[in-house]
Amino acid sequence: MTELALSIDGSRGRRAGLEDALRNAIRSGQLRSGAALPPSRQLAADFGFARTTVVAVYEQLVAEGYLIARQGSGTTVAALPVRSAPHRVSTISTKPWLLDFLPGEPDHSSFPRRSWLRASRSVLASAPDDLFAYGDTRGLPVLCEALAEYVGRTRAVAADSAQVCVFGGMVSAFGFVAEALLRMGVQCVAVEDPSLPPLRRVLEHAGLGVVSVPVDKDGMDVDHLRRTGAGAVFVTPSHQYPLGVTMTAARRSALVEWARSASTWVVEDDYDGEFRYDRQPLGSLQGLDPSRVLYAGTASKSLAAGLRIAWLVVPPGLTDAVKQARGRRGGVSNLEQATLAEFITSRKLERHVREMRVVYRRRRDALIEMLDQEAPWIDPTGISAGLHFTGLLRDGGPTEAQVIERAGAHSIALFGLADHLRAAPGSEGPLGSQHGALVVGYSRSSAHSFSGSVERLRAFVRTFA
Amino acid sequence: MTELALSIDGSRGRRAGLEDALRNAIRSGQLRSGAALPPSRQLAADFGFARTTVVAVYEQLVAEGYLIARQGSGTTVAALPVRSAPHRVSTISTKPWLLDFLPGEPDHSSFPRRSWLRASRSVLASAPDDLFAYGDTRGLPVLCEALAEYVGRTRAVAADSAQVCVFGGMVSAFGFVAEALLRMGVQCVAVEDPSLPPLRRVLEHAGLGVVSVPVDKDGMDVDHLRRTGAGAVFVTPSHQYPLGVTMTAARRSALVEWARSASTWVVEDDYDGEFRYDRQPLGSLQGLDPSRVLYAGTASKSLAAGLRIAWLVVPPGLTDAVKQARGRRGGVSNLEQATLAEFITSRKLERHVREMRVVYRRRRDALIEMLDQEAPWIDPTGISAGLHFTGLLRDGGPTEAQVIERAGAHSIALFGLADHLRAAPGSEGPLGSQHGALVVGYSRSSAHSFSGSVERLRAFVRTFA
Repeated sequence: MTELALSIDGSRGRRAGLEDALRNAIRSGQLRSGAALPPSRQLAADFGFARTTVVAVYEQLVAEGYLIARQGSGTTVAALPVRSAPHRVSTISTKPWLLDFLPGEPDHSSFPRRSWLRASRSVLASAPDDLFAYGDTRGLPVLCEALAEYVGRTRAVAADSAQVCVFGGMVSAFGFVAEALLRMGVQCVAVEDPSLPPLRRVLEHAGLGVVSVPVDKDGMDVDHLRRTGAGAVFVTPSHQYPLGVTMTAARRSALVEWARSASTWVVEDDYDGEFRYDRQPLGSLQGLDPSRVLYAGTASKSLAAGLRIAWLVVPPGLTDAVKQARGRRGGVSNLEQATLAEFITSRKLERHVREMRVVYRRRRDALIEMLDQEAPWIDPTGISAGLHFTGLLRDGGPTEAQVIERAGAHSIALFGLADHLRAAPGSEGPLGSQHGALVVGYSRSSAHSFSGSVERLRAFVRTFA
Repeated sequence: MTELALSIDGSRGRRAGLEDALRNAIRSGQLRSGAALPPSRQLAADFGFARTTVVAVYEQLVAEGYLIARQGSGTTVAALPVRSAPHRVSTISTKPWLLDFLPGEPDHSSFPRRSWLRASRSVLASAPDDLFAYGDTRGLPVLCEALAEYVGRTRAVAADSAQVCVFGGMVSAFGFVAEALLRMGVQCVAVEDPSLPPLRRVLEHAGLGVVSVPVDKDGMDVDHLRRTGAGAVFVTPSHQYPLGVTMTAARRSALVEWARSASTWVVEDDYDGEFRYDRQPLGSLQGLDPSRVLYAGTASKSLAAGLRIAWLVVPPGLTDAVKQARGRRGGVSNLEQATLAEFITSRKLERHVREMRVVYRRRRDALIEMLDQEAPWIDPTGISAGLHFTGLLRDGGPTEAQVIERAGAHSIALFGLADHLRAAPGSEGPLGSQHGALVVGYSRSSAHSFSGSVERLRAFVRTFA
């Protein structure tokens, strides 16, 4: 009979404390497999419990498998592995950047907390109880309708709400699209070069072959695409990521013509289509051929990346494959979907986008003015839309590698074009960028810190003078 | 030159109305490929626009690819497919049930709307801006911590927050677990027979072979499992779905012993572990061997299925595989995760579960009392926990098929055991149920309608007298 030293935490009541203490003693190896427990009467006396309490606790732990009760031989500890030290998942150490000019996320200090809460309150006050049930895995009908109307009106997408699907983020959605394409017999897809690195990864992860197609000032090179034999292509026609160019009308026509004649699919990634500064936003490519173009939009740039909501408008010929690929994975909260629907139909989303367009435009102008003054070796391009532009590096100034390296030393977060490129080394870079380019995001700083950031960046670019 | 009849909707302003009207005329085929548009001057005069407006609209549609402008030959319609009639996805026609005794969802009329809104307000008032950024795809750290503490305290799960992952629902999570198992070299997994039909489907969908292992009054037959050669098993030890039996201590020990000696994995589906009526809830199986048992919990029964939130506590040896399988798919809103974390840490979840436990217990008692009085041919089993029980059909009464058929005719939603079974026909059913069994859920009715439902069900079972 082992002497039992238990530390009993009574914060949840003494009975629960005894139960936890015994479990922990067994898990930690303090009470070893086969060890006999004191008779309930003795333990009750030792620790000042009613005997019935101890009996009940023993029974509970027998039922859970920690203890074994054998007629005549008392209660013993079952054969269990000693608990190993808790496994710690290593976390990525994030460098504390002084300045953040990375692209990809909006200004999260400007998230419309009040009007989101108002939308949420309105949903919780009036939604039918059904909202809390499983519902349709494709998306909440009220959100699918709101989105169809929204993308039809603001992006000239030809959308029937029955073709809208809701996903937990754009890259997540593309993972399921990749599986759907495989189900349709597509083995190889094309992406733009340069492009967003996670896009290629998610497509390859699904098992697709991925080829790169160069981008020039008119957008993706469709002639080159035609020669790849790809069964589908992922493009960013409104504001190419990262170069920022807009696909020309001729290329758009050629692209849908390719899809139609080769019976292939175009996935239009309209990640920042709401933000265009110098004229009205261009309508979507999807509108040109809704039967061949799958349109993808997201709340990540217009509202917040942390909401994890994106939407697809799926051509009828792909609907079943997308549905099957998704299965029951990747559901999105009905409550959040209803809140976004309310946010859209009450025009709160458009108001927010309109306000942020003014904010971002001012930031862009301030940045470009500063670069004009201080860094004639940078040639900003793709500036008319989105939340970033590309600064081509002119001959005679520093190279991309030099700028990125020194930026790191100054704790300035900047992406270079090289991170997005696959082209063979030695080939001329896109848009004639032999010296490379910087991908400059201006959305992530908070509103109050942006002008300070521009001044610090001014000091930085002056170090190259 | 075609005469142009455009119906211009001016609700968004006349310019946008003209743009939409032209796009629609092209998409619908009213304006055919190659057709020449009127010169901007003429269209401006015909419809009362400033000429600059028409020029701007033409330019916009040229840039989008709908129109082609050629020097000297005016503006013509590009070659586009005529838009087909919108594709309607057929919706499942849901029969309007008079009575709903299906299992699987809690009473959504009892969703704690006010306290959820309070938690949401508190999050929106105090969360750092980071909450709106992408964050960790594994789960929001504050929720992982809250869940580790919650399942440790209420379910005796040995959980380090670094091992907790958050998913958009339990079946979604199991889809990713299935992929992770495949990555670990597992080719075949076992499920209980009977079991939840979508579970088998999601595992097969991932590409796993699935074998069935019978369940008796002590839970899954572990000796049978041992003979299958399965590399992993999905079980419901606390309250077997659908039979409702609790796995005995001996079987629990045998199960973890199997996992340990065969280096296989146990996935513990603790879907309704919070609800136990006749004594304290049994602790989790996972606590017996956290290195071999993956624990899965969900908010779908304790709170609302529509939240689409479930969590896994993953053994260290599976962490990387689960992470890789998930990739960037299936993200869950940070805002909702933070709200659930607040809901848990402020003990709102436990309070809600405690209240609902009383409600469901009363419902169960009322149902069983009525069946005792009216239908001695039904033998309720698995009644001590969860949101449903199984009514075994005794010899001499109607068979399962007879009851289900007549229930359908009376618009009463009831599941039969047969929907959950794979065993060869002719074999004796589980728990000796030669006549089959009914799976009776008592959670879905709203609070105010439940007693009426019991009386209607009384009238129905009397039809078999």
